[in-house]
Amino acid sequence: MPFDPTKLKDWQIAEEAEKSLPTNEDWIERLGLEKDELIPMGRTPKLDFIKIMDRMENKPDGKFIEVTAITPTPLGEGKSTTSLGLIEGLGKRGKNVGGCLRQPSGGPTMNIKGTAAGGGNALLIPMTEFSLGLTGDINDITNAHNLAMVALNARMQHERNYDDETLATRGLKRLDIDPTNVEMGWVIDFAAQGLRNIIMGIGAQRDGYMMQSRFAISVSSELMAILAVATDLADLRKRIGEMTVAYDKKGNPVTAEDLEVAGAMTAWMRNTINPTLCATVEGQPVMVHAGPFANIAIGQSSIIGDRVGLKMFDYHVTESGFAADIGFEKFWNVKCRLSGLKPNVSVLVATVRALKMHGGGPKVVPGRPIPEEYTTQNLELVEKGFCNLKHMIEVVKKSGITPVVCINSFYTDTEEEVKLVRKLVEETNTRVAVSEHWLKGGEGALELADVVAEACEEPNEYKPLYPLDMPLRERVDAIAREVYGADGVDWSPLAEEKAKRFESDPKFADFQTMMVKTHLSLTHDPTLKGVPTGWRLPIRDILVYSGAKFLCPMAGTISLMPGTGSDPAYRRIDVDTKTGKVSGLF
Amino acid sequence: MPFDPTKLKDWQIAEEAEKSLPTNEDWIERLGLEKDELIPMGRTPKLDFIKIMDRMENKPDGKFIEVTAITPTPLGEGKSTTSLGLIEGLGKRGKNVGGCLRQPSGGPTMNIKGTAAGGGNALLIPMTEFSLGLTGDINDITNAHNLAMVALNARMQHERNYDDETLATRGLKRLDIDPTNVEMGWVIDFAAQGLRNIIMGIGAQRDGYMMQSRFAISVSSELMAILAVATDLADLRKRIGEMTVAYDKKGNPVTAEDLEVAGAMTAWMRNTINPTLCATVEGQPVMVHAGPFANIAIGQSSIIGDRVGLKMFDYHVTESGFAADIGFEKFWNVKCRLSGLKPNVSVLVATVRALKMHGGGPKVVPGRPIPEEYTTQNLELVEKGFCNLKHMIEVVKKSGITPVVCINSFYTDTEEEVKLVRKLVEETNTRVAVSEHWLKGGEGALELADVVAEACEEPNEYKPLYPLDMPLRERVDAIAREVYGADGVDWSPLAEEKAKRFESDPKFADFQTMMVKTHLSLTHDPTLKGVPTGWRLPIRDILVYSGAKFLCPMAGTISLMPGTGSDPAYRRIDVDTKTGKVSGLF
Repeated sequence: MPFDPTKLKDWQIAEEAEKSLPTNEDWIERLGLEKDELIPMGRTPKLDFIKIMDRMENKPDGKFIEVTAITPTPLGEGKSTTSLGLIEGLGKRGKNVGGCLRQPSGGPTMNIKGTAAGGGNALLIPMTEFSLGLTGDINDITNAHNLAMVALNARMQHERNYDDETLATRGLKRLDIDPTNVEMGWVIDFAAQGLRNIIMGIGAQRDGYMMQSRFAISVSSELMAILAVATDLADLRKRIGEMTVAYDKKGNPVTAEDLEVAGAMTAWMRNTINPTLCATVEGQPVMVHAGPFANIAIGQSSIIGDRVGLKMFDYHVTESGFAADIGFEKFWNVKCRLSGLKPNVSVLVATVRALKMHGGGPKVVPGRPIPEEYTTQNLELVEKGFCNLKHMIEVVKKSGITPVVCINSFYTDTEEEVKLVRKLVEETNTRVAVSEHWLKGGEGALELADVVAEACEEPNEYKPLYPLDMPLRERVDAIAREVYGADGVDWSPLAEEKAKRFESDPKFADFQTMMVKTHLSLTHDPTLKGVPTGWRLPIRDILVYSGAKFLCPMAGTISLMPGTGSDPAYRRIDVDTKTGKVSGLF
Repeated sequence: MPFDPTKLKDWQIAEEAEKSLPTNEDWIERLGLEKDELIPMGRTPKLDFIKIMDRMENKPDGKFIEVTAITPTPLGEGKSTTSLGLIEGLGKRGKNVGGCLRQPSGGPTMNIKGTAAGGGNALLIPMTEFSLGLTGDINDITNAHNLAMVALNARMQHERNYDDETLATRGLKRLDIDPTNVEMGWVIDFAAQGLRNIIMGIGAQRDGYMMQSRFAISVSSELMAILAVATDLADLRKRIGEMTVAYDKKGNPVTAEDLEVAGAMTAWMRNTINPTLCATVEGQPVMVHAGPFANIAIGQSSIIGDRVGLKMFDYHVTESGFAADIGFEKFWNVKCRLSGLKPNVSVLVATVRALKMHGGGPKVVPGRPIPEEYTTQNLELVEKGFCNLKHMIEVVKKSGITPVVCINSFYTDTEEEVKLVRKLVEETNTRVAVSEHWLKGGEGALELADVVAEACEEPNEYKPLYPLDMPLRERVDAIAREVYGADGVDWSPLAEEKAKRFESDPKFADFQTMMVKTHLSLTHDPTLKGVPTGWRLPIRDILVYSGAKFLCPMAGTISLMPGTGSDPAYRRIDVDTKTGKVSGLF
């Protein structure tokens, strides 16, 4: 240790580091757990969070650190890597530190971006389990979600085929579902663009009900949002029952409870409520709970993970998906408001590479060689691109949470480039640290660990961007102007009609606002980099997550189902059939 | 013990019995395992079969007992129940006994038939884990299978959108896939009739490739067939690579290997290779491995499960799906031929209820009250319906395996009815036992256990129905005449064309024949009961499982995707949110 990440691939580092992965017995001793608080699951045990919370009820919470980023290149700027590096750095300083990350989706893992296990010496292990299903939470969500759709379409078929009297013999009352007004689609946890829009129910009388439908990626399921914000199994059950699956012909919601499938859905999800325990390559505890994609989902690790982490650790590190306009905005205005937990510090991850892109560098395309501008010194691009980082610093400051900028150093960055970024950040009166956790692990993250620990001691006052009694369209306007830097919001006729309905119906008064927007730009257009000005945010539709209690305005043309590219990661993934070890994950 | 199954529901019995479920430590001691041969997974550990086989290599195999049945009512005639009862009975006699059953599919569990955990005092525990995903094997198969379809459709999109030169920059050579000749569909493990036939790829240039497609139930996936017959991880990897996903425009197969997705599919399935360990309510070990549905799949527990079971136990019990014409025929001619293992005894399960149905009793409809004929004495129906059992006895005798008929007694059967069946079986010179395991557990299965143990000592000579060098159409003819009692086979033009091609291509010379046919009749028509005569078997198509090395002739109108009825089980399933316990499974 540390490993040489310029020579070894991540999965090779993981394989080596996993030789000293803590065992269940190690964890019980190190975390001071009771034996029955840890549920053995191969190499990745689950934690019985209720038992732990009950035992530690009176212990004061630790420091709460969130990690976010500037607008990333499509390759990602190492937010997970920095979260893990920070945990390793605080660990090297002898702190009782841990965190909670999100389970990766099979979409990116099998496609171009790869898994979300960090990288180099700031890596999560066991990497194979983490990357390929872990303890099954996403599978459970997929099954529970699709069971609602099975129940919906079968019910529509039976209501079409049988009269009221026959339905009554099965104890069924006609729900009279409108096939043109179905809120939910199906889910699958791959980037299956071919299933984005489908016609289903083709055939004869018993081949279902013919209608348009769609598949989204599983991690964007409302059930994942519910898991991220649920407080316990009872809350999960209640919220699942309240999910709107479709509408009847009068426009009334048809819920999972109406379809009598909410109990069974909860049964499929019963194990998801407990976080799974993994580790950094340096052995610090990292829980994994809930899912990614803050562009099309809440994209936060769970409130349960934060609650239990703040009890178990003196420093609890979590991350919010993608950039500060997306993941952090939801952390700030949705997750923290719901949990009531007060974060101390938000770490803003920036890379020289991304700053150059914002400064006008050539397009970065996943799976293709990176242009020369990104691997040779170019101070002009860095300076011009700083505007995006500056904007994100201002966003974090609006929340009252103390920002710390982390320059996530890459081995091709020059000393002068890094020095320039540091100077520019310091000019905004913001703490900054350079970190080399990818190259050196915790040893490389000591400056970051020290600056973050210092910032944690600073008093701060968390305040949401908008009060909950602000009407939906005003809230979206506030987010668009204050966070994205837009001049205002344009509503499609459909979105406006829905917004008016939600604003006037008291049922939606306590619903959170969860934006759906690309993470590749502050705007809705992924090609616009830096800090675009003179633009308005177009909202085309609003999704209703009535179990999660979210209204989700959708900006631009973003889809809930990503696509698989022409050079996907699965081409290089294989199994050593002698040892069972998986190669090619990155 | 025993519990009163006339008062308690199965999930209530399970809840009580699970209080004494063996722990991992118990299993290690009782089965004489090395610590690392057991992989902890909550309450259902996996067994590292390679390690166990290596250690026990030189131990002679135990006795090998298979359980099959007469043509069942749609409610099932208690094959799993009898398998578990037999294990309990042999256990009560002090034998070292265990078995391997199949993981239930979410389709029946959420629909009308319920889970496959047996029932009453012959029940598999932990019942919730077993019924709802267990250790994730079916989820892993679903993901691996669908990843092949993601790869297929994305490749078709990219080949349409890019010219050869652009494809070459990604290292891709045009596969030129024929969208009208796609062998595989998607899978989901519910009874989702609305997804039987879909049109996918609707939208614009990056929304996939538009084509017809279909969803089958996951347990019918070729990957499940491969898991059932694979010898180890290397064999699994090789077979996955050979799976035919589609054909190119010249009719050549496009395999998972061609799509460069076989390694990643194996990675998703790497954990499925090890059986999961559960128990009877009386504490005997029962492995669970591979899947159900011998009508539309192989429907056998795995060869791996049998191999390791025959080493660990002196009596190893397994079951084959549905009736002897379907599950047993595949056990006999496919599974045993592939494994080379020689079964000692096949237990043929019969119920008074099913015999009455075959004798002309009224239709049995799942989810509806059962007609009076089935709950009051009716010797005439029993005697008339005996023909089906007699036929199945003859089928088993053709295999050379020693048959034992088990009259699976139900508490509404009269003494005279049971006596009549016993007499009729004895007249065929076949061993017979009455078993009351449902009501009394192992105590109720002592006669069955004794008769089976005795039959195991009888020398027998297993012989397949047909030699492997018999051409496909002759084989199907032999199965239709000798097993189903048909007068011959009618091939559709499509099926005949395919059959001729397979017969003349040496590539298919060592392929097994896996029939797809309803289990509700000896014929292809589920409404025809008893032993129909004067009929011919229509074959409409032939599926190619080139990884499993199966050709699957499809009889009649059977679909690989069952439908969800109007009164499905999920309506009654729920979770106690205080304890996490699931109610309503049956």
